[in-house]
Amino acid sequence: MTTDGYMMRRCETCDRRDVCACRGPAQLSCFVVESLKESFGRDGIDTPEEVGTPVPSRGRVLEALHCFMDVLFPGRMHTELEHDASTEGFVQERLARGYRLIRREVERALPFRWTGAYARSKGHTKPDGNVSETAALLTNRFVAEIPRVRKLLVGDVQAAYNGDPAAHTYAEIMLSYPGLQAITVHRIAHILYRLDVPLIPRTMSEHAHTTTGIDIHPGATIGESFFIDHGTGVVIGETCEIGDNVKLYQGVTLGAKSFPLDEEGNPIKDIKRHPTLEDNVIVYAGATILGGETVIGKGSVIGSNVWLMESVPPGSTVTLSNVEVKVRRNSE
Amino acid sequence: MTTDGYMMRRCETCDRRDVCACRGPAQLSCFVVESLKESFGRDGIDTPEEVGTPVPSRGRVLEALHCFMDVLFPGRMHTELEHDASTEGFVQERLARGYRLIRREVERALPFRWTGAYARSKGHTKPDGNVSETAALLTNRFVAEIPRVRKLLVGDVQAAYNGDPAAHTYAEIMLSYPGLQAITVHRIAHILYRLDVPLIPRTMSEHAHTTTGIDIHPGATIGESFFIDHGTGVVIGETCEIGDNVKLYQGVTLGAKSFPLDEEGNPIKDIKRHPTLEDNVIVYAGATILGGETVIGKGSVIGSNVWLMESVPPGSTVTLSNVEVKVRRNSE
Amino acid sequence: MTTDGYMMRRCETCDRRDVCACRGPAQLSCFVVESLKESFGRDGIDTPEEVGTPVPSRGRVLEALHCFMDVLFPGRMHTELEHDASTEGFVQERLARGYRLIRREVERALPFRWTGAYARSKGHTKPDGNVSETAALLTNRFVAEIPRVRKLLVGDVQAAYNGDPAAHTYAEIMLSYPGLQAITVHRIAHILYRLDVPLIPRTMSEHAHTTTGIDIHPGATIGESFFIDHGTGVVIGETCEIGDNVKLYQGVTLGAKSFPLDEEGNPIKDIKRHPTLEDNVIVYAGATILGGETVIGKGSVIGSNVWLMESVPPGSTVTLSNVEVKVRRNSE
Repeated sequence: MTTDGYMMRRCETCDRRDVCACRGPAQLSCFVVESLKESFGRDGIDTPEEVGTPVPSRGRVLEALHCFMDVLFPGRMHTELEHDASTEGFVQERLARGYRLIRREVERALPFRWTGAYARSKGHTKPDGNVSETAALLTNRFVAEIPRVRKLLVGDVQAAYNGDPAAHTYAEIMLSYPGLQAITVHRIAHILYRLDVPLIPRTMSEHAHTTTGIDIHPGATIGESFFIDHGTGVVIGETCEIGDNVKLYQGVTLGAKSFPLDEEGNPIKDIKRHPTLEDNVIVYAGATILGGETVIGKGSVIGSNVWLMESVPPGSTVTLSNVEVKVRRNSE
Repeated sequence: MTTDGYMMRRCETCDRRDVCACRGPAQLSCFVVESLKESFGRDGIDTPEEVGTPVPSRGRVLEALHCFMDVLFPGRMHTELEHDASTEGFVQERLARGYRLIRREVERALPFRWTGAYARSKGHTKPDGNVSETAALLTNRFVAEIPRVRKLLVGDVQAAYNGDPAAHTYAEIMLSYPGLQAITVHRIAHILYRLDVPLIPRTMSEHAHTTTGIDIHPGATIGESFFIDHGTGVVIGETCEIGDNVKLYQGVTLGAKSFPLDEEGNPIKDIKRHPTLEDNVIVYAGATILGGETVIGKGSVIGSNVWLMESVPPGSTVTLSNVEVKVRRNSE
Repeated sequence: MTTDGYMMRRCETCDRRDVCACRGPAQLSCFVVESLKESFGRDGIDTPEEVGTPVPSRGRVLEALHCFMDVLFPGRMHTELEHDASTEGFVQERLARGYRLIRREVERALPFRWTGAYARSKGHTKPDGNVSETAALLTNRFVAEIPRVRKLLVGDVQAAYNGDPAAHTYAEIMLSYPGLQAITVHRIAHILYRLDVPLIPRTMSEHAHTTTGIDIHPGATIGESFFIDHGTGVVIGETCEIGDNVKLYQGVTLGAKSFPLDEEGNPIKDIKRHPTLEDNVIVYAGATILGGETVIGKGSVIGSNVWLMESVPPGSTVTLSNVEVKVRRNSE
């Protein structure tokens, strides 16, 4: 590994390049900052226009996300409802706060539609029109979808209750089930993804990934009454299409096979790479289903640890065959 | 997907149902709140009595949990011990604070013994007696178990030290090992589960799931000197019974097979669905053991990725057989 | 399970050992604290010298870590850059703060070089020389490496962009990709590991494990342009050696086989236990590669779910053979 241009400057006193006794912390810090300045904006990962473009604040994006979770499940999923508070007043306040926060961050995110490596490769340029007005319009469209999202989430709560013998109240599902948390964040982030808001949907979905271990790309299309049990290690790719009443267990991957490269050797970024699961499919723990043309037919059951790269017809049961388990007594 | 009753009301000016220029954010928010009000308490996931019942505060439950972690491992697992603080004074203060916090939340949780879908299905009703006094008694019983939990956790720390060649001090295990964190939270939550306190045990265990990736249902019974290495993706179901000196690696599932349904098609919620592991069992990464009647005999070793749905006698070594790995040179 | 010495003292009034009506919370707490005092410092996991030795503060270690993330990716990975702030001023401030914080914690960590179970077993004793001066020197060495780390991370960002068709901007990779977050923390923690600073590197890497589900031991050696996609469940052991341009997917384990015990039955802690991956290796989801002598030759591709305990030559493609998937129609 060469480190040209990144090495510390020579010490003017003793001529050493690395840490030397002549250097105090202040001098050392100067060297470090000077070296870093040679990198920032010049090493290919911060294009000049990106360097000058502020990104949405993760803190405010997540605060807005939590406001919308409060609106959808008041007093259950995130902020506690005070004993004597009215639900309606609480929901109004959280919605107003979430609206204000997300509108501002959408405005900060929009320039990434025409900034950065992909936009440059596609020749996207700043459109006419006022960025602030566009942000307001997109935020309105987003907020108008919230009642529809609530309806979907009611079905998801019921799917969790029916799908998990350990669930005794709806309250505990809303309070603590990671699968419900992940699909709630996904249904919010997916609206913003469809409105083509950059950066923010993924910030939300990676937050859910951190808290739940479930990695759903905000682009994935997911139907009604969806349930993920346990969930750690689940991966659902950007171009997945999932029908109604689908149930997944921990460690399931709905992923891409290899992906085609363009003539410059870069991955082609706009094709269906991930599978389709029709209605009423169950996928057990650790199964892997790959490929954009793979369709799992309605009502199929995919067994634990199965590895599948081709379509199966409706009503299939897929298991690993000729895998045997060998039991040997230690004394033998 | 129909969205009847959830769509925005028509705009009185331009007659459109969706977002329109005539609507400001305030008007839009009114529409959203009105639509949501039609859902809250009427769509089956918040029964009328649940809507009016405050849930335990996740924030205070987790603060109490951290107090008990401080009591069990003063200055090691959660709050730092100030340089000149006395351990005894610290433990007294944390215990008093944890006691006060958890007592209040237990009182808020108790009504869920006779509220919600499962209680209704079982015909549970509010018993005679003062809820507040019951909460105090349960909290006393819980706190009285703490010294016993400390003893168990000492064995868990030693099991981690003996089981991981990378461990050089006990301090680093208490400071940073996710497996120890998960079993500490479990041993606390399991007491509350056995005292039949609703909601709170699962809130604690899902917090540990978030921070460690290890999902132990608070109902699981776990013996002495337990160690989980790495841990991400481990699932231990509600009715598991685990003996002493058991060691699990990342991605191990101790789960349910399919579960029987009652005459109304709902899962039956009170039967043993998860396996039993006798003393001195080791289960390597990614193995899956399923079923309430599956017993892994004393001293058995279950190999990586094994998928097991039946009992094995004591002293067994279980591996995948006739799985072969095919190595192909790219130039071939 | 015996609980001798840990049981509650008998109640002086009613002679019961467990919770009784005569006891108020204050009296109960006294019993608990008294019982715990018999354990602290006497039960083998806090050696006397460890009890008196404060540990590094996790809060301050992580705040320092976040400062260094800000220095490496100003305004992108952790703290937001204010709209009108100068990048240089921000970097100076974060570096100064990180320096001050980590210097203090390094000083608190150093005594664990000669304290605790492993040090005792090795006969390490407190060296001559001033602990505070050693801490300052180590911190200087650490900080001097930061420009080199930035250079490596630039390559990691580019590897993520080229390796993931869903990535549209570099900004989103720095803002939200868990794989980049994990390797950033690792490259910082690894320097401290090589400087033989106790406790702090693992505190950092377990924090990354919590937020990303990726468990990289700070001892692992990792080359340029490294990319982990999705990441949940990845385990990379202490003595792994990974070349340049390596790509891993979720659930990959680079682990130890069994480990040899010394004559007292304790695991031997200082040998290579984990595999070597040469340049340009790809390991797909859920594969497990074990053993200190296992070498995956340059340019090899290891398929999903493969379980490998021996070396393969350069240019190999390794897949599971004779695992078949059985598809059965439910009506059959």
